[in-house]
Amino acid sequence: MTKLDVCLSPALIPLFEVEKYIVVIIDIFRATSSICYGIDNGAEAIIPVAEVEECLSYQEQYPHYLLAAERNGEVVTGFDFGNSPFSYTKEKVAGKTVVLTTTNGTHALHLSRNAKKVVIGSFLNLTAICDWLKTQYDDVLLVCAGWKNNFNLEDTIFAGAVANQLIPAGFRPDDAAIAANDLYEIAKDDLDGYLKKTSHSERLKKLGIEKDIAFCLQVDITHAIPVLEGEKLVKLK
Amino acid sequence: MTKLDVCLSPALIPLFEVEKYIVVIIDIFRATSSICYGIDNGAEAIIPVAEVEECLSYQEQYPHYLLAAERNGEVVTGFDFGNSPFSYTKEKVAGKTVVLTTTNGTHALHLSRNAKKVVIGSFLNLTAICDWLKTQYDDVLLVCAGWKNNFNLEDTIFAGAVANQLIPAGFRPDDAAIAANDLYEIAKDDLDGYLKKTSHSERLKKLGIEKDIAFCLQVDITHAIPVLEGEKLVKLK
Repeated sequence: MTKLDVCLSPALIPLFEVEKYIVVIIDIFRATSSICYGIDNGAEAIIPVAEVEECLSYQEQYPHYLLAAERNGEVVTGFDFGNSPFSYTKEKVAGKTVVLTTTNGTHALHLSRNAKKVVIGSFLNLTAICDWLKTQYDDVLLVCAGWKNNFNLEDTIFAGAVANQLIPAGFRPDDAAIAANDLYEIAKDDLDGYLKKTSHSERLKKLGIEKDIAFCLQVDITHAIPVLEGEKLVKLK
Repeated sequence: MTKLDVCLSPALIPLFEVEKYIVVIIDIFRATSSICYGIDNGAEAIIPVAEVEECLSYQEQYPHYLLAAERNGEVVTGFDFGNSPFSYTKEKVAGKTVVLTTTNGTHALHLSRNAKKVVIGSFLNLTAICDWLKTQYDDVLLVCAGWKNNFNLEDTIFAGAVANQLIPAGFRPDDAAIAANDLYEIAKDDLDGYLKKTSHSERLKKLGIEKDIAFCLQVDITHAIPVLEGEKLVKLK
């Protein structure tokens, strides 16, 4: 029976043998939502890097790449954009390569890079990614990027949304997947209302990105599944 | 406003400045349940140690101490007992000192020892510990011992039971405390039934300790609050 495990924080990734899993990276507000949107909108590739300095070093070699850097929820000064989904529209990214560093999402991605496959999930491509996972017959590990290595609700609720589709398909959940699924059951009819209770929602509100939050909570508006190939996230064929 | 934070795994303890909190250690199946029961039954002290070898070294110096060691759910060969609550009755522990090492609970305890205070929680003393926390006006960190550094449901559900009493008293929950509280709301009317879904419950069942599990899910049957003083857990005065 295929397993469905949930890793609630990047700090817990070392507890899992990632090479035995397909890993889904989850950073709902906002990195993985924006990556899904950008790849769906025809970005040729998105290159996740851990450090702001790495972003800059790409610019020297590839001056036509777009540079995106976010730290603590804000665009880093001097960069083209951060991780707002509204920066990943067709007009801005179609045919382009984006080099991206974020506070939490790219960190989780780098720690998971030895997995069988690393794909990117968000509410935007929820059913697309679940349908694909059901065809793979591999154990699945959902990695919540969290906030600065700690648990957060929005990534866990999304993990629960995936569990909600995969458990009925026969995947065996671990304790964290059971918890995530139960929390999703509570939240699903009003995701925005449920997440308004959270500390991170407050933090993001102070940054003036309520529109981004509403955007990231749209379900099934894209179909592309971003997958890590070498150092690049590209559209899964 | 006093904070109520929940640390879902010992691996996440470094994310918190424990010296700013009263820490409650939670290892429902079975270490902290047995400690609460033992202290309530008049044990003079319970000394938590990290390693089996440390237990043995106490024996040389203090031959009248009882030695308790559990690894992977079983009593370590040659020890007086492990962490089954039925080993912590009045008859066995009143007036005695027990040196205890367990897979998860004592590990979490050692990582939290620099807190303002370290106390021990379980369903057995749930309301006693909540009532006491309400009188302290200190930030509270609930540390789930989990299973081998990963998340588990039973410790999280208990954290939720504490949150369920402290949030209405004005404590401000972090994301993990909100999640724990919501999971407790689902589980509270049938704790045993809810936890039967978990992997750990399966594991414990194989060890033949269903009676221990039922015992550990009894609510408010004790009043003592074990507190760490130096190296010893004693009854809070």
